[in-house]
Amino acid sequence: MQEAPIRIIGIDPGLRRTGWGVVETLGNSLRFVASGTVTSDNKLDLASRLRQLHDGLTEVIHHYQPDEAAVEQTFVNKDAVATLKLGQARGIAMLVPALAGLPVAEYAPNAVKKAVIGVGHGDKKQIHMMVKVLMPKASFDTDDAADALAIAICHTHHRQSAQARALMAGR
Amino acid sequence: MQEAPIRIIGIDPGLRRTGWGVVETLGNSLRFVASGTVTSDNKLDLASRLRQLHDGLTEVIHHYQPDEAAVEQTFVNKDAVATLKLGQARGIAMLVPALAGLPVAEYAPNAVKKAVIGVGHGDKKQIHMMVKVLMPKASFDTDDAADALAIAICHTHHRQSAQARALMAGR
Repeated sequence: MQEAPIRIIGIDPGLRRTGWGVVETLGNSLRFVASGTVTSDNKLDLASRLRQLHDGLTEVIHHYQPDEAAVEQTFVNKDAVATLKLGQARGIAMLVPALAGLPVAEYAPNAVKKAVIGVGHGDKKQIHMMVKVLMPKASFDTDDAADALAIAICHTHHRQSAQARALMAGR
Repeated sequence: MQEAPIRIIGIDPGLRRTGWGVVETLGNSLRFVASGTVTSDNKLDLASRLRQLHDGLTEVIHHYQPDEAAVEQTFVNKDAVATLKLGQARGIAMLVPALAGLPVAEYAPNAVKKAVIGVGHGDKKQIHMMVKVLMPKASFDTDDAADALAIAICHTHHRQSAQARALMAGR
């Protein structure tokens, strides 16, 4: 069976900074493709900032042509204003790959941690270290880009187990 | 001074139902143009639902060609999950007019109430009644569409006072 590698974009949404990371997976192999951060100008009004996130992510997806997308199911428990703000950015992070025709998976933060560091808890440093262990060529300019790569890695694990379940079920 | 009427779209965002209402204003006159509700299918995944809202609102804006948009600054104090959900829908409601090049204003619920019923508090029934008083030809299929018309009316008031202030300042 000859298969083509699958490209996955992970997205860590935020109104000020949205991290993204693209990886390629084939069987058990994992390859770093690119990562980066889309920012919005906090001197602009909200609608213009959301448009900046939209335009930046659209450009990344056009450039790297991923096959599937995964977005973190972030939670802020600070206050309703912060949660609403994050939700707005997250709406854009989910919409842009959907407009490009990609399936969009969502993962809770502890699922991402479990996939990358093996347990459901751990700090950012551990996640970033494991991203480098799993993909030695990975580079990231911000924490958000590193988190986005972790989300992409999480999706490669989950889609593999989904495939394995499908094979075992004879599908 | 001969002026063309200004078309305003008001949007009341929600993941299940996003209401919209288009009005025209010229000086002190106010005219109902259209209203409706864009819905998303709750059996679909989140990204597909956000895409449905995007596609629906894009169609409305292409059809009615408003000059300006106004979106309610809704707050849910139920829980973080509900607030995040609303934020996602609101992100789309702000993005779509911004992508069409429209300026997008935001109004808090009490500003909308003050503009329509004269005071910063009151129930939905009072708002809907006043929408009918201000625009006898107005029709709406849902509460969300009526709320969206109220938001559009609120914006006509605020842009008039902004213009008046500008005139008085000799600009």
